[in-house]
Parts: sequence; structure tokens; C-alpha cells
Amino acid sequence: MHYRMERDMIGTMNIPQSAYYGIHTARAAENFRVSGQMVHPELIRAIALVKQAAAETNMALGLLDRQVGNAIVRAAGEVAQGNLADQFIVDAMQGGAGTSTNMNVNEVIANRAIEMLGGSKGDYTVVHPLNQVNLAQSTNDVYPTALRIATIRLLRRLAEACATLLSALQVKEAEFADILKLGRTEMQDAVPIMLGQTFAAWAEAVARDRRRFGAVEERLGQVNLGGTAIGTGINADSQYIAQVTERLRDLAGLALGRTENMIDSTQNADIFVEVSGLLKASATNLIKITADLRLLSSGPRGGLGELRLPKQQAGSSIMPGKVNPVMTEMLTQVAYQAMAQDLAITLAAQGGQLELNAFLPLITANLLPAIDTLARAIELFAERCVRGIEAVPERCRAHLDNSVGIITALAPLLGYDQAAALAGEALAENRTVQDVLMQSGIFTTEELKELLRPEHMTRPGIIARSGPLTR
Amino acid sequence: MHYRMERDMIGTMNIPQSAYYGIHTARAAENFRVSGQMVHPELIRAIALVKQAAAETNMALGLLDRQVGNAIVRAAGEVAQGNLADQFIVDAMQGGAGTSTNMNVNEVIANRAIEMLGGSKGDYTVVHPLNQVNLAQSTNDVYPTALRIATIRLLRRLAEACATLLSALQVKEAEFADILKLGRTEMQDAVPIMLGQTFAAWAEAVARDRRRFGAVEERLGQVNLGGTAIGTGINADSQYIAQVTERLRDLAGLALGRTENMIDSTQNADIFVEVSGLLKASATNLIKITADLRLLSSGPRGGLGELRLPKQQAGSSIMPGKVNPVMTEMLTQVAYQAMAQDLAITLAAQGGQLELNAFLPLITANLLPAIDTLARAIELFAERCVRGIEAVPERCRAHLDNSVGIITALAPLLGYDQAAALAGEALAENRTVQDVLMQSGIFTTEELKELLRPEHMTRPGIIARSGPLTR
Amino acid sequence: MHYRMERDMIGTMNIPQSAYYGIHTARAAENFRVSGQMVHPELIRAIALVKQAAAETNMALGLLDRQVGNAIVRAAGEVAQGNLADQFIVDAMQGGAGTSTNMNVNEVIANRAIEMLGGSKGDYTVVHPLNQVNLAQSTNDVYPTALRIATIRLLRRLAEACATLLSALQVKEAEFADILKLGRTEMQDAVPIMLGQTFAAWAEAVARDRRRFGAVEERLGQVNLGGTAIGTGINADSQYIAQVTERLRDLAGLALGRTENMIDSTQNADIFVEVSGLLKASATNLIKITADLRLLSSGPRGGLGELRLPKQQAGSSIMPGKVNPVMTEMLTQVAYQAMAQDLAITLAAQGGQLELNAFLPLITANLLPAIDTLARAIELFAERCVRGIEAVPERCRAHLDNSVGIITALAPLLGYDQAAALAGEALAENRTVQDVLMQSGIFTTEELKELLRPEHMTRPGIIARSGPLTR
Amino acid sequence: MHYRMERDMIGTMNIPQSAYYGIHTARAAENFRVSGQMVHPELIRAIALVKQAAAETNMALGLLDRQVGNAIVRAAGEVAQGNLADQFIVDAMQGGAGTSTNMNVNEVIANRAIEMLGGSKGDYTVVHPLNQVNLAQSTNDVYPTALRIATIRLLRRLAEACATLLSALQVKEAEFADILKLGRTEMQDAVPIMLGQTFAAWAEAVARDRRRFGAVEERLGQVNLGGTAIGTGINADSQYIAQVTERLRDLAGLALGRTENMIDSTQNADIFVEVSGLLKASATNLIKITADLRLLSSGPRGGLGELRLPKQQAGSSIMPGKVNPVMTEMLTQVAYQAMAQDLAITLAAQGGQLELNAFLPLITANLLPAIDTLARAIELFAERCVRGIEAVPERCRAHLDNSVGIITALAPLLGYDQAAALAGEALAENRTVQDVLMQSGIFTTEELKELLRPEHMTRPGIIARSGPLTR
Repeated sequence: MHYRMERDMIGTMNIPQSAYYGIHTARAAENFRVSGQMVHPELIRAIALVKQAAAETNMALGLLDRQVGNAIVRAAGEVAQGNLADQFIVDAMQGGAGTSTNMNVNEVIANRAIEMLGGSKGDYTVVHPLNQVNLAQSTNDVYPTALRIATIRLLRRLAEACATLLSALQVKEAEFADILKLGRTEMQDAVPIMLGQTFAAWAEAVARDRRRFGAVEERLGQVNLGGTAIGTGINADSQYIAQVTERLRDLAGLALGRTENMIDSTQNADIFVEVSGLLKASATNLIKITADLRLLSSGPRGGLGELRLPKQQAGSSIMPGKVNPVMTEMLTQVAYQAMAQDLAITLAAQGGQLELNAFLPLITANLLPAIDTLARAIELFAERCVRGIEAVPERCRAHLDNSVGIITALAPLLGYDQAAALAGEALAENRTVQDVLMQSGIFTTEELKELLRPEHMTRPGIIARSGPLTR
Repeated sequence: MHYRMERDMIGTMNIPQSAYYGIHTARAAENFRVSGQMVHPELIRAIALVKQAAAETNMALGLLDRQVGNAIVRAAGEVAQGNLADQFIVDAMQGGAGTSTNMNVNEVIANRAIEMLGGSKGDYTVVHPLNQVNLAQSTNDVYPTALRIATIRLLRRLAEACATLLSALQVKEAEFADILKLGRTEMQDAVPIMLGQTFAAWAEAVARDRRRFGAVEERLGQVNLGGTAIGTGINADSQYIAQVTERLRDLAGLALGRTENMIDSTQNADIFVEVSGLLKASATNLIKITADLRLLSSGPRGGLGELRLPKQQAGSSIMPGKVNPVMTEMLTQVAYQAMAQDLAITLAAQGGQLELNAFLPLITANLLPAIDTLARAIELFAERCVRGIEAVPERCRAHLDNSVGIITALAPLLGYDQAAALAGEALAENRTVQDVLMQSGIFTTEELKELLRPEHMTRPGIIARSGPLTR
Repeated sequence: MHYRMERDMIGTMNIPQSAYYGIHTARAAENFRVSGQMVHPELIRAIALVKQAAAETNMALGLLDRQVGNAIVRAAGEVAQGNLADQFIVDAMQGGAGTSTNMNVNEVIANRAIEMLGGSKGDYTVVHPLNQVNLAQSTNDVYPTALRIATIRLLRRLAEACATLLSALQVKEAEFADILKLGRTEMQDAVPIMLGQTFAAWAEAVARDRRRFGAVEERLGQVNLGGTAIGTGINADSQYIAQVTERLRDLAGLALGRTENMIDSTQNADIFVEVSGLLKASATNLIKITADLRLLSSGPRGGLGELRLPKQQAGSSIMPGKVNPVMTEMLTQVAYQAMAQDLAITLAAQGGQLELNAFLPLITANLLPAIDTLARAIELFAERCVRGIEAVPERCRAHLDNSVGIITALAPLLGYDQAAALAGEALAENRTVQDVLMQSGIFTTEELKELLRPEHMTRPGIIARSGPLTR
Repeated sequence: MHYRMERDMIGTMNIPQSAYYGIHTARAAENFRVSGQMVHPELIRAIALVKQAAAETNMALGLLDRQVGNAIVRAAGEVAQGNLADQFIVDAMQGGAGTSTNMNVNEVIANRAIEMLGGSKGDYTVVHPLNQVNLAQSTNDVYPTALRIATIRLLRRLAEACATLLSALQVKEAEFADILKLGRTEMQDAVPIMLGQTFAAWAEAVARDRRRFGAVEERLGQVNLGGTAIGTGINADSQYIAQVTERLRDLAGLALGRTENMIDSTQNADIFVEVSGLLKASATNLIKITADLRLLSSGPRGGLGELRLPKQQAGSSIMPGKVNPVMTEMLTQVAYQAMAQDLAITLAAQGGQLELNAFLPLITANLLPAIDTLARAIELFAERCVRGIEAVPERCRAHLDNSVGIITALAPLLGYDQAAALAGEALAENRTVQDVLMQSGIFTTEELKELLRPEHMTRPGIIARSGPLTR
């Protein structure tokens, strides 16, 4: 392998001649051989976009040489498209508040620009990673700005995934609209519900999640670019500060704006805790839905068995023919993981000190994969599980017909206490409610038949209207 | 003690004659002698409000006898005002999805109404806790509705507390506007900032928290009252469902509305996770601010010592004269606790099954105290800490004058690498940056004096404008 | 009310004449009116025990006047017994690393001792709370020492509660030893198990929890008493340090010893995270067991219905006759809460700085209630739920007979693939496995009857021994 | 690309001809394209070891054909050595309780064994992945057994890393044994300590962590191999159950034993929560140590500046010459992450249902990386940070000499109240304690000099022995 020598304040280091990264990156890669997890590519792309916006703005203001500037813009554009992805070699768990990743992007863009200008990699007199690529910037404004952009972009994908799931649930809602089943509270038989209503409730929860991810975009879009080192804007021209965010907004195609107080935005990371809190709220819905699916499809014979999930793979290495609800389990796990990632993000955010939060890389390492993985998991779940769900109407009906809870509809007539006594009788004697009621002589067969039609019980209304009976 | 005998489906039980609660409450009190923590009074008051709204609506629709209804309304009104608070005796950790607390409120209102009507407590032929106080209701719509109301009310207090803290910080922002100090990133000397800017950044974070608590109110206000047992509205008249939320809105004076899908709202508790997530985001800000205050006031001699916190109590039982930053520590702890409470709320919310979440009492037991305690802690902190903070301008200035980071302002002139070399020289030789720069011969004394004025560095702008020097 | 005036470094304050606490307590009570939660009484008692041990040791070494010392010992003894409990008025969320609680105990003991010696409360020339009650101590050694003692004592109660639950489960294990039922993995029908085995597995998990709580006692018993302010032992006589822990060991009746490195023990709180981690591990078992009970007792008709839990209270305000698994839900919630408390403890522990952890009060406020509440919840659950559980053998058997999973026993004969095909046939055609196998002609009726006896499948062994068939 | 066709209960699928994995793996890889994180290689190796032990035992008992068995043993041995690592292609977030990973290992070993026996991949009549490689096994005993082995192995590496850090800290303890510095509690000046003592306290905490990881090994070593599907041992010969664990113990070189109750071990995952809880306890120590290092090395000029951390990389893209404590920040982040991973593990463990915990893959996906990453992070930190730490004795001394806290040593003579008054005077008038004391006339210059020697204050003992002065 051929090497070039680079120098920094610590000393010198050999860098592979073919590498676009430089000495700052190489040191960081060595210092942080920790988790094996790389920095999320969406962050790299967003940083490159920031570099592009900064270079364009600096050029427009005459602060950056046009030839150099244009090369930087093109190189940054390539990285923003996802090129040179293998040049970002610093571990996700890096110390230094993201400086190493910023340095990494600066160096890759500089060397790519040098190459474009006919120079040889490492000759930073042609394009300088700090004096020029990083001009008027600090990690401390570039990194949080890019993290906000990356978060917005991934949240959009997640919102789309929610839409896919929502629509899959709504298809089933319509398909199962007329299937009567037993509602259950605290795992105990309650009152009737339509299977379609069950899917509608899940759909509504997912719809709410989707709205959440959209609604937070505006708050996320307030960036501190121009604040430089600590938010005061040192070494950034006022014109630059005024213009760079607009430039970035156009490049990103997102509704970005400059934050009210750049010092605050440089040191506080609560917005990411807020976003992560929304993921966590959504995760509780996903866990609930997937657990319900496992319950309703339990069996197939020794469980509730009211639903059938599509078979995706053999379920056991020892029990032939067994199929497990693996897509639901996958999603449950991803949701659990999002809760854990939320804790990591929270710990990082609360650990800020004075003018900076040193732990932004930990936020990146948890927030971006959390969103990403949730989006993919939700899509797979919609596609490979929800779309193929079948109802087992006869079991739904059997559980309902057998149940005692329908006496609830008569409570307005009988009063709670008498109704409770009759329900107790049915259970103790292992009889149906209908039977016990008939024998009680309170109602005629005709009355009972009318009063206990379960479909009525799935809609608002007092079926037994005339007040407690006195006969 | 005198007793009356009451009866339920399990059997009979002696209830103290003076008690307003009845047998359902008494059983629950025995079953759940667990934590010693009682149900938060704000929930009890909100449930009573729901009872009042339901009774008024039922009366208006002719579903409830006027005399009985009016007594219920008055009794509920008393409880909603905080009366009879000692009659709510069921532990906060109760099982049963809140049924015991709903039963408790039903019984207390019933017996108080009986008393008003001249009956004797326990004679439920006069007013029946279930058939009449609970008419057209289920715990499963009453309880979540009341929890939303209680949450909104407490969040308003919290938002007020934030406003108090915000204004205390802003007073200091103005007071310290002209005090120059050293900014620090990753605990290392960075570039200059005004002490007023430091307080402004904290204030902005607190302002954001306040806005959050306000913005969530609309989502919290969507209630499932009328959904009864599982959200289908069984045993609730359609007119009642249409009217009761409006009635409740007027009584509560809050912008309440009926939720889109009552089945969803009955079984999903993600809204409380969302609210709690906002508390957690706010908690990270409070932890950051209080930790910063401890850092900046550390010493008083062997630390940074740039601020002086007001003395509230002797700090040590062994070290005479020691005073500790106790108000900041108190608030940090309350914020940590809010994070823990968020986990409890999340665990409860994800544990819902099918048509109900059985763990709403755990959400109540964590969410309401979290908001409440945060509000009180923030107010005490504003009053007993922030308002009395004093600056130590001479230490602020000394730390700044001594620091090397101001060379940053010259980097546009010198280039990063040369600036780094000069900074390294200053540190290695224990000299000031000014001194090293002077000796370098790059600048005249006059130039340096102009270039290194720290007040300029606290505002946007490239002080050294003309690009890397070549002389 | 009559008042006396007390003075401290801040100024003067009126203290109720009847109060045993003094000015340091009163200031703290005002500063920290936050959560309404008081300091756990077990900590107060343990601190008093430390005071007693210190006074006795100081007296024995001639460092404390005998008359004063004896009064302190008696007064401390009273507090250690639980007397004067209403004098401990500082909020659990106090700042100051526990100093306020130590001050509170010092003052109450001093004033009680003054009273015993015929002086009047507040006349600290008779007995001085700091110079004498706190002699050779600092909050920073007293408080962690007492917290360790309180934790050990409560863990013993918790271990006893586990023993109670263990024995209740074992009774059921024996009672249900011969009831065949279907085992389920991932909520899908698997292979046979005895209901007694189910209870035995739960019992084993609880037994493991009990062992954990016992095993940690030795590590908890290493105290830093004598380390004073920062663990170096300043102002504590070497003889005192050598003797006081032994004295404390005798008084407490616990196997206490002096920690290896008192500086470490003064600043690090990881032992409490370790203990809390054990609570959390146990909590996962309790959540699992209680969730299983809700599953197995679900129905009673539209669920699995294999168990019947004892009825403890009416379950619904709207559905007459409904009974819920409330004791399991209560315990689940307490276990969730313990997980949340673990987070608070962890946050507090990681927040230590330099020579002290300021957040010990938060650890106390979460750890002691967590242990306490778990103990009570487990006992109530054992008593009011487990002891009364009944099996429904006919439903257990029906689920089993109906299931397809028993084909697993034939896989060694048929090979996985053929067995899977036959299982699939049974499910698709809604037939029993026995029927499908019989029609397949592979086995005779006699062979099948022998091979598929479910009781054999609940024990180790290859029922179908001779290897894959070739006929 | 060439393909072979494989078939399962769902249908057929094309598998790349060169692949060692088969159809079950391929389906799972498609179903779970979720996180991009692969299953930790240490788990794969441990599963292969289990396969080897099972095959050897089955052969010894005549249950497995020798030729086939020997090929399986050799193939499994290769995988256990880390060969064929790229054949394990199922995502870490897989549903199905680990079945897919077990299937993956079965298939890879089968195909490798087929290859060894001269067959062609996919021809499972030569070696069958389920009937032979998986003989007498289920995922439900193989997977937890392997997870325990993998955990033990990684914990040993972590314990070694702790030993490395411990020894690095002890070197510094010796090096800095005589450097006097100021102790600080709650960030306020307290009493003297030696810098060596500071490092000794950190070392002790790390030593405790190391012991923890060792002590848990015994509990981890209790495996449920032989329990098969639900712990009852169905399809496993009694002899096999009796012998396989011993075989595995020898192969792994670990002190493994058979668990008391295999049904319990199959369904309960609390041991992993316990282990993870220990990681979390250790994490709190690491966070504390690294935060302390950032505090003590803060500055270098505008902070405490008592330590100098070795420079590993340039710290800022905008502030030339700035160096940050990046190795400490990296370790803090890894410790935060471990706390988050603990939450994921806890959530997974509490989610078990009936005879199995479906979420073991989530435990694997968090526990193994947590241990691994902690080990690497600790080693890098020891090497690149601790070993190079330098003291700045003159700043240590200056902070101490300046401080007021040394008056503590005189409190036994002066009494707390007078000492506090004098300390207050010194602070208010900005004078030294020595000066104030001298002027007070209580002591002679000689007495003071003797009494206030800070080195004495770093050891146990009452420097001012004679009791409160009366002169």
C-alpha cells in the first residue's frame, strides 16, 4: 500500500495514498475502535449538504475563492448523494462532540475537490479542509444542523411507513366490519365488538403516530448554522449568517429556519429527546398492537384463535408444523429497542455542560437508527403480516355466544346488583346467561331475544330503555 | 366505632357508619395496602367533575330522576372542590384499571347525596352509586377522561412555574449583560461570551419547555366520555354521548372535545407517554441548567467561582462555613425522578391488552406527581436560587484574559495550522497568547489590541477579515 | 403556638417550642417543600443507630462526656425504635446529599437528650447537635452507612415475602401435579406439560430472587463509618474508626464491616445500583408470572380459562358479575414501578462528582420504598391470589387433546419434514393429528395410542426410539 | 449466479448454490431485513459448540450415525472457531425466539458436513439440519445455553479490560501519592486529599466491577441443554441429558452445569437482566470517573486544571490548538449506551409468556455488544488516556492553600458554630483562613502552623485533640 504523510498539532501520520480522508480522521478512527457501528450515512449526507450551502454562501459573499469554492460545492454534492461512503470510517461512539465526523467530511470533500482541481490528495494548499471547506463553520453549528436535517428526512420515511401500515389496517377494518366478536378488558370477557372496530382502533393509533412525526418537523427545522463555536457567531460574517440557512433550505428542500437563540441551540439537545419521546409513544402503540395480534391468533387450537396470521417461515426446529407470529415479534423488539434508544438519547442530552453537549454523537448513534429501523420494521410488518391476516369468524362468534358479559345490556333494566347476581349464577352453574334469564321469569323469550342481540351492543345506546323493572 | 353492613357479589362487610365510602372501596383498600401513596387528589376532583357532567346530562335527557340527580350534582360539586378528601382511601398502586377509584368516588358521592336527601349512609335505595351516580358511565371512559383533565390542570401550573423561572432568568440576563466571561466546550476553554448570554440561553430553553406544555393541551383534551366499557358506547344514550362532553367542557373550563375513535382512546394510553416525554425533554434542560450553576459557582475558591448562589442553609455537619448548592441539587433530583416516572408511564402504556389498559392507575401514580413536583421544584428554585444569584465579574474576566481560545479570532488571518501552532506554543511555555503573538512579529501591538478585543468575539463577525496573511 | 429562637450561619429563625428538631431542619423543611414524600422511616432509624454507636464509642475512648453521651445514647435508642417519627419533616427530595436529614436526626436526638438531662429544648450548651451528637461524624459517612443498614433490613423483609410466595406456589405445584395441559411457546400450541410443572417453574424463579436478596447482604454490609467528610477520616480518632463499626454491628445485629477504601465508598454509590438491579431482575420474574396468570385465567369463557383466580372484589362499575385479576395487576404495577425506581437510582449514582455523590437522597427515596412496596405487594399477592387459585382440569385437557403439537413426539420416527406435512394437513383440514396419522397408515391404532400418551411427553425421553422410519 | 431449489412447509425457494445456509435461513433473512445489525459472532460460535457437544453425545449413545456425526462434529468445530462467518445472515432483530439463528447454524453445519462427506449442498439426505444436526435439541434449549456461554466468554474479556484499567489507575495512584490537593463535595471546597488517594478510590471502584463480572459466572453457567422445546426434555434421551452438559463443559472449558429446573430456565431470562444490571452498576462508576477527569483537567487555564490528559487528536475544527478529553467522552457514551441496552434487555425479559421468552434475540442484540464494547472502550481509555495523565501539582496546591475548608480541622477545638463564623468572615472579607485565625488571637502562629498542616488532614485523626477551647 502506498502512503502519504500528513501532519497535525500532535505530529505526523501515514495515510493510505488512495484515501480521501486525512490525518484528523485517521487519528479518530484509531482512538475510537469501539463499537464497530459506523456513523449513520444520513448524517454524513446532511453534513455534506451543509458544506455545500456554506461554500456557496461564502463564494457569493466573496469570502471564498470561486475556483476552490466550486470544487468544494461539487465534491460536497457528491457526498450528499451518498458517494464515497466508505471514506467515513470513524466509529459512531466517538468522543469529541462530533468533531471527528465533521473533520472526516471536511477532509473527504477537500481531497475530492483537490482531485477535481488536478492536485494530489493531501496537498491542502490546493483546498484546505479547515480554512476552506469548514470556512465560517464549527462542528458545533454544522453537526446539530445536519442532525436535524437527517432526523427530518428519516422521520418522513417513518411517516410513510406508518401510512402503509395504516392503510393495511384499514383494508382489514373494512373486510372484517361485520364479524361479531367478544370484547375483553383485563383479559376477562366483556361486551361485544366488531372485529372491524378492533382494526379501526389500531389504525387510529397508527394515524396519530404518523401525525406526530409530521408535526415535529417545524420544531426540528430551526437550525443554529452560523452560530459557529458556541453560538455567538464568532468568525462568521453577518451576511453569511443571514443567508446560509436559506441556501441550505433550498438545497435540502426542507422548511428550515434560523433558531431564535443560537447559543441555546448549540448547547441544548432537548429537541432530540422530544422527538425520541414521540418514537417511544409510538412504540407503545406498536407493542400493544403486536401483542394483541399474538393473543388473538394464539392457538391455533389451544388459544383464542380468532385471527390467522400469514405464515412466513417454519417456527420450530423441533416441533414440526409449528408456525410462530414472527413478524409481530420482530416489530415488538424494534419498539422495545426504540425505548432503550430513547434512554440513551436522554442520558446524552442531560449530560450537556456549559456551551456544548459533548454527547451528540451518542444521540446520532441512537436516534437515526431508531427511526430508520422502525420505518423498515413497520413496512415489513404491514406487508408480511397485516395484509395477510384472516379472520376465523366461527371462533369469534363462539366466544361471544358463550360469554356472560352481554348481561351488561340489561343492567339499566335490572340494576347492577340483580344483574350481578344473575351473572354469578350463570357462571357458578355453568349455564348460559340466556338460560338463567329465561328461567328467572323476568323476561319472555321474545324480549330476551330482542334485548340480547349482540350487534346492537357494538353501537352506542341503551338497549334496555325503561329504567329498572319493578315487576 | 359504629358500623353499617354492606353487601356485594363477594359477600358482606362492616363499614364504619361515618364513612362516605362503601363496600367496594373498603375491599379495595384492603386488597391494595401496598405503597401508602394515595391517589392524587387532582384525579379525584376531575372524576367528580365527570360525575357532575354525567348527572346533569342524564337529567336533561330525562334519564335520571331530578331530585336524585340534583343531589348527585351537588355532592359531586363538593368533591370536585376538594371536600371529603379523606374518604379516598384506595392505594395508588391499585389493580383493576381504576375501577376501585371510580367506585370510591361513586360511593362517596352517593352517600353524600343520600345524606343531603335525608337518608342514612349505606341506604342505596335513595341514591345508588352504580345505577345512578355511575349512570351511562364505565370506569373505562370516566377514568381516562378525568386523567386527561387532571393532567391539563397540572400542566398549566407547571407552565406557570416555567414562566416564573423564565422571568427570573431574564432578570439576570439583563443584569449580567455586560459581564465578559470565557465560554467553555467539553470543559475546555473556548471563546468569549457574555454572562448575560449564558442566562439568555437557559431562559430560551425554559421558554421552549413552557410552550411544549401549552401545545399538548389540545391533544390531551380529546376525551372518550360516552364510550363506556370498551368505547362502543353500550348503555350510553346517543344524545347523552353527544352532549356530555360539552357539559364537561363548560364545568371544567377547558377546551375539551370528543375523541375521533372512542374504542382507540379506551385502550391506548400513548398520549400520556407523549406528555411524559415532554416532561423528560424539559427535565434534560433543568438538569443541564442546574449542573451548569453548580459548575459556575464551584469553589468558592478552589473552583470556577464565577457565580455566587444565595445561601439557603448550612451545608455540612462537619465542615463549618460550607454552603452547598442545595436548591440546584433538589431540582436535579426532581428532574431525574421525572425521567424515572416516564419509564413507569411507558411500561404501563405498552402493557395494554385488547380493549383496555389495566395499568392506568400506574400512569396516574407517576404522571400527576411528576408534573406537580416539577412545578413546585421549579418555583422554589426560581425563588430561592435564581433570584439571588450574583456574578463575580473579576473571576469571569480573569479566566477569560488568561485563556488561549481567543486566538480563534485570528484563524481567518493565520490559517488554522499556524494558529494551532501558536496556541500550542503559548500553552507549552505557559505564556499568554498575546505575548506569543507579539513576539511572532506577525502583528503590531495596535493590531493585536484591536483584533483581540473579547467583546467583539461575543457577536457574529469575522474580526480578521482579509484572508490568510502572507507577510 | 410558642416559639424559641435559634440561630445559624444564615441568621435566626423561630422554632415551635415543642419541636425536637431545630433550625437546620426548619430551614431544610422550607427549602424543600417539594414532593410531600417524607424520608423513609427505616433510614431515620438506621441513622439513629449510627448515632448511638458513635456516642458509645466516643464515650469509651474518653472523647465524649459520659453524662451527655449516655443521654445521647438513650435518645438515639428511642429514635432507632421508631419514636418521635413526626419530628422528621424534611422532604425526601432534599438537596444537600442528606445533610438535612442528618441534621434533623442530630437535632432531634440533641433536644431529646437535653430534655432527659433537664434542660430546655434549644439550649445546645447542654447537648450540642453537631459538636456532640455528630461527634467524629459527617453526613458523608453516616448517611451511606445508614442507607446500607436500612437496605439490608428491608431486603430481609423482601426475602421473607419471597419465601411466602414460594411456599404458596409450591403448595399449588403439589396440588396440580397430575393435571395435564398444553404448553405454549410464542402463544402457539406446543407440547404437553403438567400444570404442577408450571407452578414449579414459577416457584424456582421466585426462589432465585430470594437467594439474590440474601447474597447481596455481605456486599451491602461494608460501611464507610469513620471516613467522615470525604473518606480520609479527618476529625475521627483512629481508635474510634477501628471500633465504631464493631459497635454498630452489635447494635444492628448485622454482619457489618469496614469498607476497604473509605474514600471510594464515600463517593461511589454503585452498590445501590447493583441492589436495585437485582430488584429489577426479580421484577421481570414477577411481571412474567402475573401476566401468565392473567393469560391462563382469561375468560372465564372466551379465554383460556385453565385457572380460576380467587375473587377479591367486583371488577366493573358497568359490567355486572365481572371479576378482574386485580391482585396480579397490582403486583405487575409494583414491579413496573421498581424498574422505574431503578432508573432513578441509576441516574443518581452516575451523577456523583469528585469526593461525594450529592444525590444519595434520591437513591433513598427510590430504593427503600421499592423494596418495601415489593415486599408488601408480594405478600398480598401470595395471600389473596396464589393461595386461592383453582385449576380447571377439563379445559386444560381439552386444549391439549385438540392440539397438533403432540406430533413432535413422532418426529424422531417420521423425520421433521414428514411430520410437518402431516401437522399441516391436520390444521388445514381441521382434523385431529390422531385422525390424520391413522389415515396415513404409518401406524396402527395401538402404536399411536402408545406413542401419543401426553403424560410421557412431559418427561425426558425419546418416545419414538427407533430412528426415522423407512416403511 | 447458480441456484439450488429448497423446499419447506411454506413452499420452495432458490438458494445460491454456493451458500451453506438453506431455505429456513433465507426466509428469515428476507423477513427480517430490519436493522442491518447481524447476530453477534460470539453467539454463533457458542451455538456451534452446543451442536458439537450434542453430536458427540448422540454418537456416544448410538443415537446418531458415526460417519454423519463425525462430519457434524468437524463442521461445528469449524464454525465454533469463527469460520464461515459470512453465512450467518439473519438480522439481529429477528422474531421467533432465536429459531432462525438456530436454523442458520443447523443449515450451515449440515451443508459443510455434506460437503465433507462428498455430497452436494442442499442434499439433506446426506446430513439433515434438523433430524441430525439439531438431534435431541430445540432452539429453546440451544439458544439460551449458547447465550450463557457467549456472555461468560465476553465477560471474561471485560474483566480483563477492567484489570488493565485498574492497573493503569494504580500506577498513577503511586505516582501521585504525595501531591496534596483540595477535596470537593457538591462542587464546593471541602478538606485536603492526596491526588494518589483520588486515583486509589477510582481504582477500588473498578476493582469492584471486575469482581462482579467474575462472581456472576457461576450463575450464568447453569444451562438448560436437554430441556428441548419447553424444558420437559421431550425427544431427548435421559442419558443424553445426563451427559451433554458435561461434554459441553469440556468443549467450552467453562464450569457449566445443568440447571435445577429446565422448565424455568427455558422461560425465564432474569439472569441476563441480573448480568446487565451489573454492567449498569459498573457504568455508573465509569461515568463518574470520566466526568471527574473532565472536571479535574478542565481549562487548561480557565478551569480546575489540576490534571493534564494526553492529547490524542485536535479538538476543534474552528478553535486552533484546542484539545478535548475525547477518550473520556467516548467511554462515558459507551457507559450511557450500556444503560440503555440494560433497558432493552429488561423489556425483553419481562415480556416472556408461558413456556418461552420470544424476545431472547433482543437480549442477545443488546447484551453481547454491551459487554464487548465496554471491554474495548475501557481498554482504549486505559491505554490512550489514563496511562498518559499528568498532574499539575502547583495548581493542586494553589487551590488547596486558598481554601477555607481546612478550618474543619479546628472544629473540635473551636466548636462548629465559632468555626463557621470564622469561615464566614474569611469568605466575606476575601481573606485566608490562616489570616483570620491569626487575627482572632485564639492561636499562636506556631499552633496554627502545626494545626493546619494539610497532609495531616488527609489521614484519620483529630488534629485538634483537646476539646473546645475556653480561653
